[in-house]
Amino acid sequence: MNLTLVQELYEIIDSFPIVDVHTHVRWKKGAASNIGEILSYHYYTELANSAEFQEGKFPFDDPRELTRVILPKLQLISNTVQYDWLMTISREYLGLDASEWYPENWEFIFDRSVEVMDNPDWEEQLVAQSNILRVFLTNQYDDDLEGLDTSFYTPCLRTEPFVLWMGQPEQRKGLEAFLGREIRTLTDFLEVIEKTFTKFVRYGMGYAAMSIPVGFETRYVSEDDAQRLLNKMRSEGQLETKERQIWGAYALNRICDACRKYKKPFHLMIGVDRDVYAHGVPQGTDLFNSVNSMRGYDYLLNTYKDVRFPTAVLADTTGLELVASSWIRHNVYPSGHWWYSNQPTDIAREIRRRLDVVPKNKIIGYFSDAYYLEFILPKFRMYKFELALALAERMERSLVHPNMEPFTMDDALELAEDLLLTNPARIFGLDFSG
Amino acid sequence: MNLTLVQELYEIIDSFPIVDVHTHVRWKKGAASNIGEILSYHYYTELANSAEFQEGKFPFDDPRELTRVILPKLQLISNTVQYDWLMTISREYLGLDASEWYPENWEFIFDRSVEVMDNPDWEEQLVAQSNILRVFLTNQYDDDLEGLDTSFYTPCLRTEPFVLWMGQPEQRKGLEAFLGREIRTLTDFLEVIEKTFTKFVRYGMGYAAMSIPVGFETRYVSEDDAQRLLNKMRSEGQLETKERQIWGAYALNRICDACRKYKKPFHLMIGVDRDVYAHGVPQGTDLFNSVNSMRGYDYLLNTYKDVRFPTAVLADTTGLELVASSWIRHNVYPSGHWWYSNQPTDIAREIRRRLDVVPKNKIIGYFSDAYYLEFILPKFRMYKFELALALAERMERSLVHPNMEPFTMDDALELAEDLLLTNPARIFGLDFSG
Amino acid sequence: MNLTLVQELYEIIDSFPIVDVHTHVRWKKGAASNIGEILSYHYYTELANSAEFQEGKFPFDDPRELTRVILPKLQLISNTVQYDWLMTISREYLGLDASEWYPENWEFIFDRSVEVMDNPDWEEQLVAQSNILRVFLTNQYDDDLEGLDTSFYTPCLRTEPFVLWMGQPEQRKGLEAFLGREIRTLTDFLEVIEKTFTKFVRYGMGYAAMSIPVGFETRYVSEDDAQRLLNKMRSEGQLETKERQIWGAYALNRICDACRKYKKPFHLMIGVDRDVYAHGVPQGTDLFNSVNSMRGYDYLLNTYKDVRFPTAVLADTTGLELVASSWIRHNVYPSGHWWYSNQPTDIAREIRRRLDVVPKNKIIGYFSDAYYLEFILPKFRMYKFELALALAERMERSLVHPNMEPFTMDDALELAEDLLLTNPARIFGLDFSG
Repeated sequence: MNLTLVQELYEIIDSFPIVDVHTHVRWKKGAASNIGEILSYHYYTELANSAEFQEGKFPFDDPRELTRVILPKLQLISNTVQYDWLMTISREYLGLDASEWYPENWEFIFDRSVEVMDNPDWEEQLVAQSNILRVFLTNQYDDDLEGLDTSFYTPCLRTEPFVLWMGQPEQRKGLEAFLGREIRTLTDFLEVIEKTFTKFVRYGMGYAAMSIPVGFETRYVSEDDAQRLLNKMRSEGQLETKERQIWGAYALNRICDACRKYKKPFHLMIGVDRDVYAHGVPQGTDLFNSVNSMRGYDYLLNTYKDVRFPTAVLADTTGLELVASSWIRHNVYPSGHWWYSNQPTDIAREIRRRLDVVPKNKIIGYFSDAYYLEFILPKFRMYKFELALALAERMERSLVHPNMEPFTMDDALELAEDLLLTNPARIFGLDFSG
Repeated sequence: MNLTLVQELYEIIDSFPIVDVHTHVRWKKGAASNIGEILSYHYYTELANSAEFQEGKFPFDDPRELTRVILPKLQLISNTVQYDWLMTISREYLGLDASEWYPENWEFIFDRSVEVMDNPDWEEQLVAQSNILRVFLTNQYDDDLEGLDTSFYTPCLRTEPFVLWMGQPEQRKGLEAFLGREIRTLTDFLEVIEKTFTKFVRYGMGYAAMSIPVGFETRYVSEDDAQRLLNKMRSEGQLETKERQIWGAYALNRICDACRKYKKPFHLMIGVDRDVYAHGVPQGTDLFNSVNSMRGYDYLLNTYKDVRFPTAVLADTTGLELVASSWIRHNVYPSGHWWYSNQPTDIAREIRRRLDVVPKNKIIGYFSDAYYLEFILPKFRMYKFELALALAERMERSLVHPNMEPFTMDDALELAEDLLLTNPARIFGLDFSG
Repeated sequence: MNLTLVQELYEIIDSFPIVDVHTHVRWKKGAASNIGEILSYHYYTELANSAEFQEGKFPFDDPRELTRVILPKLQLISNTVQYDWLMTISREYLGLDASEWYPENWEFIFDRSVEVMDNPDWEEQLVAQSNILRVFLTNQYDDDLEGLDTSFYTPCLRTEPFVLWMGQPEQRKGLEAFLGREIRTLTDFLEVIEKTFTKFVRYGMGYAAMSIPVGFETRYVSEDDAQRLLNKMRSEGQLETKERQIWGAYALNRICDACRKYKKPFHLMIGVDRDVYAHGVPQGTDLFNSVNSMRGYDYLLNTYKDVRFPTAVLADTTGLELVASSWIRHNVYPSGHWWYSNQPTDIAREIRRRLDVVPKNKIIGYFSDAYYLEFILPKFRMYKFELALALAERMERSLVHPNMEPFTMDDALELAEDLLLTNPARIFGLDFSG
């Protein structure tokens, strides 16, 4: 590790503005109001619950009390990158050094956080200080987007209700309420998709997306089969497993029809196993499965050849499959490093693989998956450091590698800019010129 | 690689006493009697058989002859870490330099080993020289534990006979002999478990454990179903595959009931494929399967929320699944680096993953899996060197990483102590204060 | 990365002659005639198609036009190792610096390439300049081998027509034409195998080989079952999936009978998913599947204990399975780094695993898989650089590793020679003494 070179590269890359192509930020109030909200992020509550079992229970509704309760447990996770994110938030935004983080000091930390974060200008300051240019959101079809600042936020449509949850009566009722009438026929179903896309496009839609369970298989489904399944959902409620998969395949195809029509990408997020840990905190109960292949997506990727598919995978074991798909498939774009794979070891490996064999105009470097704007900076820094390391290594090896031209600092920075700015802009149709 | 820093760290970590939480040492005579016994360890015979085929046959009953036969083959495996373990044994215990290991010198080496190892004080000297504080054993329910030195050895119960082998008449007879009557009912089965735990707890039981085949699935099994299967085993002998799995799930649940009652952990060792190589040496016929998930353990881990599950995985492909489970599940503890994953490349990756996202109080650094006490030191040194490397790297990156506080030598050593001493002591309920 | 040491090692290793144990070179004209042929290699057309979609269509029949069309796209893949191979070809063989590779210069590059490559001595010059000692070929049973220079080329038999494609009438007709009569019975089938082996052995056969689909399972198949399947193929054409697998297992066993009889290895190439990308260039439509195990090969490897099985795996997830198999199985030899795993990240990991636990006389370092002789040098250089890195790292760690003897430059070079020359020669029965 050539520390000097890594640092030099990192500092320039860190000065790039941030385009964050996937977050869970709530646009009406993107920043936290206090450190308790920051600590309510599932990374902290789940790690605290794991380090010292609390039956998954914390005072989630009382940020002050949550701060008091979580703080003594942080020492047990001080080795983690998640703790490092928190310390970056503390230093950069609260002006508090890591040494301030001891249990007895919880009240001081909390009060200090309110002082900073409760300021009406806080969100604006945070965005300016962190040099965040654009933030993509995660939205449900019926989210209120009225008043959305489309010069900063890009809404993205989550498609689970259409694809995975249609068999749940309350979910179907939600869609029907949005449509304004019952969903009896496939025509009704197409119209609720159409109405959703029309709405999202009006607000500068980024893409449609889904967090896809392990074992999902895309395929052609006939209208007859789909109508039969819709009838069954309406008359009998939930479908059987196999039927749910068929409906899912049908519905995903229809969503991709809309993506095609409106020239919007579909962002695949592959490989989650939901609700497997029975004693976890909210959002801390999902895992992944190392046994999962991208083969289930062949139909979709082949059929929608004119739709772009940015793709993130949850399992390390799917990493090279994603790389190989992005290498030969024109419409697959490796996107970021997701959740359990969003840590230095797996980021480092995938960065190198992607830089070595995926066309450089196709790699989408990173997204934060943040729930509050405060997390964007520390998470991007984690990634940017690994990227700087990989680029520094590439510069060094180019000096002696028999096949390589000298790979200069300028080359490295251009590549970093491709991954962090140029590619996201082109692939998601953004315009930063203005 | 900052060699100076790695070495400095390594040397301090090497000075820690060794707590070895999983071995196959035979407590009545833990050390070898000569180098032939050392060479009979399957790692050497299997590698020799692989490098120069012997139909899996060596003079296992004649250590002197085995030494003569194996020695010429060692040159073919001099690149391996297993050879390095042997050279450490040679240097540290026999005072013989690696240069002494040439075929014609076999007799000298053998005689020298007898001179050292046949000494009645040898075991004591070895333990003192290697600074071994405690050794966990692998025991069958009916092992003779009378006279066990519980200040040094911790017996651990292997549960395969209850869970996997009950359909084999001779295995069932063994359990019945131990119980003192036939196992006709589930009550009988519970009593043989109870009798076993009572015995083991009397000798300071560490944990129950099982080496679990690929594809094992834990689940609820009703008493009716279990009794029916027990009846069938008694009347018809072996069960069908699916039935064996159901019995296995039932029996594992009952073992975990006992773990709960006696507050003992269950050590999962996940993912072996037994007896797949037909021409191997004894214990050199098993492999693993890259297609295996921890999803099969959800029921167990959720149901026995008050039982600790230290967990080792055999497949590299399950490494991140274990990390993610340990990250969110309160009762999963990543434990060591097992068998085919017990080599520098895979140890290095898993150390980094664990240190980055698993609470530091949950990581169990290493166990040797040794068959003779002599192997504990070289195997721990292999691990400690990889740990020193990871910690040195962490110290270096902390100097320039935008999210990190300086990670000092003291921090590094404290983390090493957590992994090697503090965590094993707390998780397995040891007391080193005395 | 100790650049000086890496470079020093690399330069000596680069001076070794090249023995390339798997290529697709066409022996009648092994070298390209112009740069357009080089660019028609699927690596360039598939990456170009992926970077800027062309519906998989390029002017493959017009090398000059292909050069004009591909050149502007190369900038989009200038980050890739495949681009680096091309630049090595340009520098080493055409004397053209990388800076010459800009779109407007396509005609100059093409003309220059014709000037060099159209020279009747070109192939000879290339082989001498690249220090290529021997090249293994990929041949169909009916390839014309008359006049093959067996002092340089080693023919290897692809067995897909016998094992995978027998249900396709035109494929069966081809075999029948070669045999000189219809294949009605298993005896006919054995005779076409026998005739093929006799022919190949006459030309210095290297081995039989197959690129094996995901999920393939080897097993015993009775003659009755096989004859029944042969009858069905003859009467009804293609078999059902399950039947195809049974025929495949039968036929592979018979091929291995012939390998046994003629003492030839069978080279397994495990884990391809054919024709999954619908819009790819020729040879750019296949991917792999991370969910695949070597367990399906147990029967074959156990039964043919006297047949050597050099083995390459396509999936990174099978890497440690291959290492573990090579570690204990006497007749499995890890061979090279194949296709999607043939890039620095995965090569680096597998080199280290193999060097640490596989007997050093069993590791087959590398093969190029090249379609033109020009690719052999750049691909071997990519591998040799990763090998030099791994060996330099081993030298450095040996200075401080508690278990290791000093691992010297001489030791490193000897190991490199084992992997690159000694082992391939012994395992494939070559004689370089003459």
